[in-house]
Amino acid sequence: MRQQASARRSLAAMTAPASVVGDLLRRVQACNNGVEAAARARPLVVGGQALGLVLAKAADELARFPEVFHVTKSSVELVAGDSAEARSAAVADVLAQLRNSGRVPMLAGWRNEAWPVKAGFDSPIELVIERAAGPLFGVPGYGCHVNGLVYSDAGSGTPPRLWVARRAASKPTYPGKLDHVVAGGLSHGERPSENVVRECQEEAGIPQELAAQAKPAGLVSYCQVDETGWGVKRDVLFCYDLELPRDFVPEAQDGEVESFELWELQQVINSMADTKNEDWKPNVCVVIIDMLVRRGFVKPGEVGYVDVVRALRS
Amino acid sequence: MRQQASARRSLAAMTAPASVVGDLLRRVQACNNGVEAAARARPLVVGGQALGLVLAKAADELARFPEVFHVTKSSVELVAGDSAEARSAAVADVLAQLRNSGRVPMLAGWRNEAWPVKAGFDSPIELVIERAAGPLFGVPGYGCHVNGLVYSDAGSGTPPRLWVARRAASKPTYPGKLDHVVAGGLSHGERPSENVVRECQEEAGIPQELAAQAKPAGLVSYCQVDETGWGVKRDVLFCYDLELPRDFVPEAQDGEVESFELWELQQVINSMADTKNEDWKPNVCVVIIDMLVRRGFVKPGEVGYVDVVRALRS
Repeated sequence: MRQQASARRSLAAMTAPASVVGDLLRRVQACNNGVEAAARARPLVVGGQALGLVLAKAADELARFPEVFHVTKSSVELVAGDSAEARSAAVADVLAQLRNSGRVPMLAGWRNEAWPVKAGFDSPIELVIERAAGPLFGVPGYGCHVNGLVYSDAGSGTPPRLWVARRAASKPTYPGKLDHVVAGGLSHGERPSENVVRECQEEAGIPQELAAQAKPAGLVSYCQVDETGWGVKRDVLFCYDLELPRDFVPEAQDGEVESFELWELQQVINSMADTKNEDWKPNVCVVIIDMLVRRGFVKPGEVGYVDVVRALRS
Repeated sequence: MRQQASARRSLAAMTAPASVVGDLLRRVQACNNGVEAAARARPLVVGGQALGLVLAKAADELARFPEVFHVTKSSVELVAGDSAEARSAAVADVLAQLRNSGRVPMLAGWRNEAWPVKAGFDSPIELVIERAAGPLFGVPGYGCHVNGLVYSDAGSGTPPRLWVARRAASKPTYPGKLDHVVAGGLSHGERPSENVVRECQEEAGIPQELAAQAKPAGLVSYCQVDETGWGVKRDVLFCYDLELPRDFVPEAQDGEVESFELWELQQVINSMADTKNEDWKPNVCVVIIDMLVRRGFVKPGEVGYVDVVRALRS
């Protein structure tokens, strides 16, 4: 049934009509709803470098620890420690106290996962924090998202289908939302290619030799208000495309995914273009739209194309 | 010979070493050498909208035509005409006088090609100018670049070769430089897909049915000081990938290209990474590097990857 349905659809027919592109733009803009908040935020200064952005109410909480943070109207400076290790220990102590106090809702999503804070992706680590506190300090986070694509017939020109995951109801963030087949944050010291292979196995049961065929395809970035409103997520996502065999079915391994479904690409586009639809984890839409642009499923002749691509790349 | 050489090279071996990625970054930065000049430039105001950026010496020349341009320290306002037609006629008259005076070297590259000036790609046309004057007014220009790729063996994993054009010595801009097999500025009223088909025929003798298979893959933009130093080029390039058959050989049709050569991808990368090599038309490198990123020939594990991709997307 699925294959017959997709075979009836030509590549030309996949072109999203003008209004759809404008709706896709809103998905990208929704992921950049933190730009104004970021402009008002105070720089987090570590070892003389501005490495993050702190919102006013988070700064007020950090000001209660003056031996660790020197908070003024214009900046939040980490003053404890003169090495990455010493700073990290001091900040871990503050975060533990804030978590126990229950005053910072974001910390309810504690993960026990170390997150490196650096001036650039290839720069030395200046500080290591608990991952759940990343948006509190507004430090860039890096992750990998994998578009799991299934081409029904090589060379037929038929667009691929996309594996879509439904997040488990127990996830601390975005429970029950639609997600990529594989997506995860980069752990401390982990390379993107290693992350993809690990997460493919852990999240979807994709064997290593198949996962290793995932092709890197660039990155997207955005600046989003954290779900709790206490910080900004400044994420950089490495985008991968993985062509999966028609007979492969992903299997949830670690309880993070409730179910997997194979969607027609047009179904994905229509669902994202329905801006009342709140099923999607927002950043997943940005990575899928980037794939639609890269693979030519959204076309330059459509009104709004330039705006969508520029928003993806801003 | 060529096929044997490329067959020896595996996809893994194509990964550019760390230093190469840093050198590719310099190519992208070189195309953005107009960012500082643009920050100092005065807005070109047309019908109440800032549509361009004018450098100081260009503003001084335009100030000699006070019935058309109201020039102050903070802006250059087009005051003649209250319709696109009337404004365009007034500006055409100024440009003709400037061209005849020989005072603005940029206008020696006169093309007799109409260029629309708009607030956004899909916005109404506010003004039409001679294309050669685009950088004088610092108005965004739109073009299409086609990566002409030849895969030697379907499914072998061998990277494609790239058709490279040597521009004719008689070209007004970048004579003798290396270029895409097909690249051109969008003419007034022309869609990107139409432009690609037209330029494929005119520049390389690629028949329409083959040209129509070019796949759109997004866009790159940059802000570059004009060759003459009189303006900034704020270009937006629609990127296309066109897989050409192994037995197809492009043929120069319109005298704009001196010769075509089929290069191994590694030869292209090495040549661009040699920053002393001045053979390349600068913006061509940006489009090729975007293709290397999209198609995974440059990888996230390499030092500098994030910087290169962010520079491409800035």
